[in-house]
Amino acid sequence: MIHSTRTPTRATGAHRLRHWWLGIVLLFLPTALAAASDPLRSWNDGPVKQAILKFVADATREGPTFVPPPERIAVFDNDGTLWAEQPMYFQLAFAIDRVKAMAPQHPEWKDQEPFKSVLAGDLKTALGGGEKAIVDLVMATHAGMTTDEFAKIVADWIATARHPRFKVPYTQVVYRPMIELLNWLRANGFKTFIVSGGGIEFMRPWTDEIYRIPPEQVVGSSIVTRFEMRADGPVLVREPKVDFIDDREGKPVGIHKFIGRRPVFAFGNSDGDLQMLQWTAATPGTHFVGLIHHTDDVREWAYDRKSHIGQLDKGLDEALAKGWTVVDMKRDWKHVFPFIY
Amino acid sequence: MIHSTRTPTRATGAHRLRHWWLGIVLLFLPTALAAASDPLRSWNDGPVKQAILKFVADATREGPTFVPPPERIAVFDNDGTLWAEQPMYFQLAFAIDRVKAMAPQHPEWKDQEPFKSVLAGDLKTALGGGEKAIVDLVMATHAGMTTDEFAKIVADWIATARHPRFKVPYTQVVYRPMIELLNWLRANGFKTFIVSGGGIEFMRPWTDEIYRIPPEQVVGSSIVTRFEMRADGPVLVREPKVDFIDDREGKPVGIHKFIGRRPVFAFGNSDGDLQMLQWTAATPGTHFVGLIHHTDDVREWAYDRKSHIGQLDKGLDEALAKGWTVVDMKRDWKHVFPFIY
Repeated sequence: MIHSTRTPTRATGAHRLRHWWLGIVLLFLPTALAAASDPLRSWNDGPVKQAILKFVADATREGPTFVPPPERIAVFDNDGTLWAEQPMYFQLAFAIDRVKAMAPQHPEWKDQEPFKSVLAGDLKTALGGGEKAIVDLVMATHAGMTTDEFAKIVADWIATARHPRFKVPYTQVVYRPMIELLNWLRANGFKTFIVSGGGIEFMRPWTDEIYRIPPEQVVGSSIVTRFEMRADGPVLVREPKVDFIDDREGKPVGIHKFIGRRPVFAFGNSDGDLQMLQWTAATPGTHFVGLIHHTDDVREWAYDRKSHIGQLDKGLDEALAKGWTVVDMKRDWKHVFPFIY
Repeated sequence: MIHSTRTPTRATGAHRLRHWWLGIVLLFLPTALAAASDPLRSWNDGPVKQAILKFVADATREGPTFVPPPERIAVFDNDGTLWAEQPMYFQLAFAIDRVKAMAPQHPEWKDQEPFKSVLAGDLKTALGGGEKAIVDLVMATHAGMTTDEFAKIVADWIATARHPRFKVPYTQVVYRPMIELLNWLRANGFKTFIVSGGGIEFMRPWTDEIYRIPPEQVVGSSIVTRFEMRADGPVLVREPKVDFIDDREGKPVGIHKFIGRRPVFAFGNSDGDLQMLQWTAATPGTHFVGLIHHTDDVREWAYDRKSHIGQLDKGLDEALAKGWTVVDMKRDWKHVFPFIY
């Protein structure tokens, strides 16, 4: 009743009414401005950017192309799709750093491949042992501790390690256009998932901070964990045994297992993503299938059909044949990384 | 400008102002009413209801007991916790109905256990074969088709099958107090998950409709699926091979694998949930561990330590020793099912 001593006038009433409408306008102004500005500003104008914007508009507009919000499931490969994968998978760099850190406790590694060559800095020989060498490296560095301990090891590494070319944390060697895409999809009611061949527990400690993708929306490869009741409480122990490989034919399997829905949107960059893209292309109704082609040997790397990492051969042929959306990184991305270019 | 011919008066202005405030009040009235009314109206007043309400209040109030929204992970067993599990697990009833429906295509079952006894209506002999009999039943009825085909089989069954005692669809033999609890947790920013020993693909077709728990928040046991490219597109084929058993020690493993976070809230009803409850009890900070004790032989069933279904023996001892919240169904639930009591 603070105004009770004032005599209200017609003018005061009208002023209050105007004020009320102004409040409504101000309330919606940020939203209106955000919508009016470019949500994909790191993408050059062209058919790829237009295809993405059209898909989102189609999916969210009432009508025959509408996708109900619960079905707006978007899946992304990680290595080479959300962050870089050169000069080697970042998880392999982690494993190598771990071998070096753990070497004092493993004198036997001096005479044992692939550890011997890793410690000598000869990665080519170390990885010459093929899949067995990789599995040995992964099991020696990723198993034999609790899940809490491993999460801490990963978090410490990701906070301190630097990418050899760009000299920044690996968490900055992420694709700015793809971060904008993730944000734009979420702003339109999509639920964004990572579906990666990489280790699920290697990714979960940092995906929320970098991509705003929480742990429960990360699908990846895994090793077996075992519940154990210890004197100070229960733990999960990481065993040196493969549980699930979320790559190639495993990606649709992983999507079905972890998400239990057909994606309407998928983005990958290699033949390891081909089946996930085929699976999404077969989703009834409105859907989008995207493939990143690494064509920029100045700002990033150029590689595809004969690459040892992230090989894109069959996937490129199928994308061209089926009319999937192929990102030409050099042509379509105005910026690549957040830090320099 | 429909009012432009009317001379505005002070009274009109004041009326409009009142109208405006009234609009605001009406806008918030439903929310205010909902909050003021009892969110757990099917629970009798007592220590259990108070413990639940206190936990939610603690977790959502700024201060030392606060739980940040992303960490508000709540996990629920299904059989005996969200819906009933007597006179047999509902998924077993599904398997038996499937055996009967598939029998014409399997003449060999007439001489082959456990199918022979199932078809003769002698469940006791059929299940006398122990775990092998169960696995044979599950594999014969749950494998050998695509995931889409299986989802349709489940959806058709759940739409038509009736519970033998209550003569209503199984989807109505759910616990009304637990549905209220799920709603109350979600209204307070919790993400609700099912973590069940039951088949993940048996549950996903109906959990969203009944519990408002979407497929991607359902964790359960699974069989292996295999990606296959057919002439008319890709499919996932269900193989007769166990992939993961989400029971006992498997529940914390499943939580870690699928969710990747420590729950702060867990509810179960049997020794199969014990490790999940221990795992949640060990979550640092504010948490809640609940156990349903089936004590109502009139409205539901009374069973615990020596039951063949949903045995609660060790779990009851540990709950009493550790001070977990034990629901005495007879005492604590004003209503049990939505349909009659």
